[in-house]
Amino acid sequence: MNEAAKTLDGWYCLHDFRTINWPAWKMLPTEERQQILNEYITMLEGWDTTEKAGNGSHAVYTVVGQKADIMFMLLRPTMEELNEIENAFNKTRFAEFTIPTYSYVSVVELSNYMAGDSDEDPYQNPHVRARLYPELPKAKHICFYPMDKRRDGDDNWYMLPMDSRREMMRSHGMIGRSYAGKVKQVITGSVGFDDWEWGVTLFADDVLQFKKLVYEMRFDEVSARFGEFGSFYVGNILTEENLQSFFNI
Amino acid sequence: MNEAAKTLDGWYCLHDFRTINWPAWKMLPTEERQQILNEYITMLEGWDTTEKAGNGSHAVYTVVGQKADIMFMLLRPTMEELNEIENAFNKTRFAEFTIPTYSYVSVVELSNYMAGDSDEDPYQNPHVRARLYPELPKAKHICFYPMDKRRDGDDNWYMLPMDSRREMMRSHGMIGRSYAGKVKQVITGSVGFDDWEWGVTLFADDVLQFKKLVYEMRFDEVSARFGEFGSFYVGNILTEENLQSFFNI
Amino acid sequence: MNEAAKTLDGWYCLHDFRTINWPAWKMLPTEERQQILNEYITMLEGWDTTEKAGNGSHAVYTVVGQKADIMFMLLRPTMEELNEIENAFNKTRFAEFTIPTYSYVSVVELSNYMAGDSDEDPYQNPHVRARLYPELPKAKHICFYPMDKRRDGDDNWYMLPMDSRREMMRSHGMIGRSYAGKVKQVITGSVGFDDWEWGVTLFADDVLQFKKLVYEMRFDEVSARFGEFGSFYVGNILTEENLQSFFNI
Amino acid sequence: MNEAAKTLDGWYCLHDFRTINWPAWKMLPTEERQQILNEYITMLEGWDTTEKAGNGSHAVYTVVGQKADIMFMLLRPTMEELNEIENAFNKTRFAEFTIPTYSYVSVVELSNYMAGDSDEDPYQNPHVRARLYPELPKAKHICFYPMDKRRDGDDNWYMLPMDSRREMMRSHGMIGRSYAGKVKQVITGSVGFDDWEWGVTLFADDVLQFKKLVYEMRFDEVSARFGEFGSFYVGNILTEENLQSFFNI
Amino acid sequence: MNEAAKTLDGWYCLHDFRTINWPAWKMLPTEERQQILNEYITMLEGWDTTEKAGNGSHAVYTVVGQKADIMFMLLRPTMEELNEIENAFNKTRFAEFTIPTYSYVSVVELSNYMAGDSDEDPYQNPHVRARLYPELPKAKHICFYPMDKRRDGDDNWYMLPMDSRREMMRSHGMIGRSYAGKVKQVITGSVGFDDWEWGVTLFADDVLQFKKLVYEMRFDEVSARFGEFGSFYVGNILTEENLQSFFNI
Repeated sequence: MNEAAKTLDGWYCLHDFRTINWPAWKMLPTEERQQILNEYITMLEGWDTTEKAGNGSHAVYTVVGQKADIMFMLLRPTMEELNEIENAFNKTRFAEFTIPTYSYVSVVELSNYMAGDSDEDPYQNPHVRARLYPELPKAKHICFYPMDKRRDGDDNWYMLPMDSRREMMRSHGMIGRSYAGKVKQVITGSVGFDDWEWGVTLFADDVLQFKKLVYEMRFDEVSARFGEFGSFYVGNILTEENLQSFFNI
Repeated sequence: MNEAAKTLDGWYCLHDFRTINWPAWKMLPTEERQQILNEYITMLEGWDTTEKAGNGSHAVYTVVGQKADIMFMLLRPTMEELNEIENAFNKTRFAEFTIPTYSYVSVVELSNYMAGDSDEDPYQNPHVRARLYPELPKAKHICFYPMDKRRDGDDNWYMLPMDSRREMMRSHGMIGRSYAGKVKQVITGSVGFDDWEWGVTLFADDVLQFKKLVYEMRFDEVSARFGEFGSFYVGNILTEENLQSFFNI
Repeated sequence: MNEAAKTLDGWYCLHDFRTINWPAWKMLPTEERQQILNEYITMLEGWDTTEKAGNGSHAVYTVVGQKADIMFMLLRPTMEELNEIENAFNKTRFAEFTIPTYSYVSVVELSNYMAGDSDEDPYQNPHVRARLYPELPKAKHICFYPMDKRRDGDDNWYMLPMDSRREMMRSHGMIGRSYAGKVKQVITGSVGFDDWEWGVTLFADDVLQFKKLVYEMRFDEVSARFGEFGSFYVGNILTEENLQSFFNI
Repeated sequence: MNEAAKTLDGWYCLHDFRTINWPAWKMLPTEERQQILNEYITMLEGWDTTEKAGNGSHAVYTVVGQKADIMFMLLRPTMEELNEIENAFNKTRFAEFTIPTYSYVSVVELSNYMAGDSDEDPYQNPHVRARLYPELPKAKHICFYPMDKRRDGDDNWYMLPMDSRREMMRSHGMIGRSYAGKVKQVITGSVGFDDWEWGVTLFADDVLQFKKLVYEMRFDEVSARFGEFGSFYVGNILTEENLQSFFNI
Repeated sequence: MNEAAKTLDGWYCLHDFRTINWPAWKMLPTEERQQILNEYITMLEGWDTTEKAGNGSHAVYTVVGQKADIMFMLLRPTMEELNEIENAFNKTRFAEFTIPTYSYVSVVELSNYMAGDSDEDPYQNPHVRARLYPELPKAKHICFYPMDKRRDGDDNWYMLPMDSRREMMRSHGMIGRSYAGKVKQVITGSVGFDDWEWGVTLFADDVLQFKKLVYEMRFDEVSARFGEFGSFYVGNILTEENLQSFFNI
């Protein structure tokens, strides 16, 4: 039996992607549309309150291309809260004008590949806590994709000895670090929760850095030989300021 | 001809996943919605009666993410009864407000990989019977996924000699046992019944244990080299107490 | 050029799977529903007449799970007749309440792998004729799945010499024969007609025998190394007696 | 750089598959249905005129099974004409009662694998011209499927030297020729036009010959090792004579 | 860690494919249809203004076959502008009569495989700028497909040393150059933005050149061993002159 990686796990995470039913939205009288938007904004304000209280975080972005028009990323302490938020959202009037296109269920994860030896309880370490229970940045752009480590013939990540995996992850991490200040990365684990093993969410003010980072990593052995990637979603932040213009007819 | 594993088979099993058509549900007058819920509750009470009589079991959970809003897991002595339940459900008014998204047909299964030699009829052994005809636990969380054993080039489970398979399954079982008291596992076989070879249903009060168990197993050779996995569904129990609030508008 | 297997080909075959649009069906006035059912029963009686005249055969089963609610298996002497039946069915009022979910086009097939040498015209042999133009059994359960022989790297069925293929098919056939009296198997060939190379239809009074047979075969080299399987459908017979209760609201 | 095959290219080709919306079709008053059919027949007569003038060809077949109810195969000198026909069709009243299910864009193609050396301009050779600009036969049955040549590990067609490819194609062609008079084959190339590399359209009066031909070829190395196949469609000719009964309610 | 290719990146790019809802379009009164078309033409004129100012470019083509009826290719300096155009389009009346079928998000890309050594800033080189910020040609035909470089066993592009990759890309580029004057190629990179690594858009006045180019390249090692291709879309230019007849009923 091969040595399994150990993980630290933080807040549970729901990514929720939707298209807008624009024809139906346009048919609404202006006043009704504004009422619905107000209800939606009230929901967002509730999320803000939770975030300020340190009980979760969220991000709202528009998505480029037909895969979705809008996406929500939600972090909460329990799986039940994610379900409640989803449910409350689905019962809003706003939700009637959206069509679900993709979702992803996971939990913020740190692996022990890069951790040193220590007797300390990592869950008490403030640096670790800041990564397990992060306040999501208000960056201009978001990128999300799910991924697996490959298990195929000679390219089987899970059959590699711990040392080889650690070595490769270290090299991988160094690429990531070279993007410090340009790209912020949130890794969420989804083994047992959703169809891929991890979700990767990137935040950046310069959208091109997503491409540079992911492309550079692809030449690294851990991605080149062992990375399997799902769909990629890229988007622009939907701030309170441009929310009205986004939904305006 | 390679030696096939032998199985013991218990109750037939239907997993049924559905989304709720919330816009249509919301449009109903409150009274009508309550009538429909009452009809639905009456159906559940019928299932409870069956369970108490030892003639089957069931579980009802809400599902996190867009794959489904609600899932039913039903165990019954015959395939005909599963069909009848499905049919009766589809004829309820409640069903009009649900959209089928996935289902899985299987039968509770124990394999002989871990069994010792014995002259005893296992179907008369109370420990075996308790596992073939289980009362599903009322755990806070459920996790379901279908899986295959791989048949690909050198990684062909069905070409391995019985001894190798038994050895690997034993190691696998030991991981499972280390989660005793944390995760309850129900294996259902679906060869000849549905698109994958097995369904795995896990129950736990701590949802994180699903991730820990499935991830740890993935480093075990039987999963690392031979496991092929379908979609994962994770959910929260829908008790009678929170049923009203779940469906409340 | 490798020696191709020769086949004997009998009646053409259409498998047609449909879900019932229950909400629409329920909305019909009882009388109208009964008229539609009567029209449907009249169609079935026409099929019975054909079957009694030895000009074809058919089977009607309900399907467990969401893949379909009902399935038809139809055997006829020509592809044109299958098209006509399909067309006539689609023009019935009953068809308005069904949603097509899957179909399969093939022809009853016997391969020469197991045949001895003979100067006889096999199409005149009554035993062969009974298998090429079979009256489908009224077994309690049906199982259908399409399959291919694999062509992948070293596991390429079509590159094997005839002798190896014959030897493996013989071993395979022996498993099948050990289920004689429990499972009746109808093999239909679909190369050039549909997306897989064969359809396998099994009939049994004990539904568990499907699982035992298919699982045992999976350890046989011809399946273990060379079998590729599509979706599995399992169902219960829909007799005239329970037809009314199945469609009753 | 490996030597590429050279091709001769003839008429552009559109395969268009559709199901009929029978419930909507049935709801039409008989007279209106006949008007729509007349408009449809007028469109077909226009195609006939084009065919008689040698400016194209077409075939119309019904399709067995749920993949489609009807299919059109259209040959024209330019891609623009295919687009115009498609567009004109989509604007007919008849099109309102059809649902597109699949299409394929390609061009009639002859490869140089079988060609001898010659100084002649093949586009002036009447035998070549008859194959590049064919009048489609009025055979009782049609079979269509798209295909690729495999590029997978050691089974990579495009890495083989020209001589090996020519040798294999020659053997392949000999099987085809042995079906002369039974099956007529039209190969259309779709590299750069659609998702597979070729479309294969077969015509025969005995539908079983499709199965025999494709199955026999599958044992030939060029198919066994290098053939990748898409969906297969099989159908019956829809002549003017049975058009009324096909659409009759 | 393998040496990654470096890229130069220009305008962001959205490919947007849609079918027309012809039945709904036909039901409109002629006058209303013309109003909607006028609004659509006004939108196009806005795009023309942007193009003339050198702040972007666009192309509009009809698509052959059922994958789409119309496609837009849009180039803009920022990802936000693509999102705004998409949004503005979705709010037009015209959009109500279209159904999204596929989209692709990328950025115009030049790789350093073919670049010589130089101290010059390539972003200041007019030849480079003309390729990073191109005015799309008004060719008669367009061809679009997304692609990946393969990472499969021994055929793993990203594990090859830079020299091998450069050598193969050079040979590949020579085929491309032999089509100079016949086919114009725009490569857009989509790593981190969409599901494939690149989008390839070809423009030609002779549609057959797409097939010749892509087929010839397929025999080149870089495609034969390392190319993975998505769906191919082929279309005809939709000029202002034929816009009225295309939409005319």
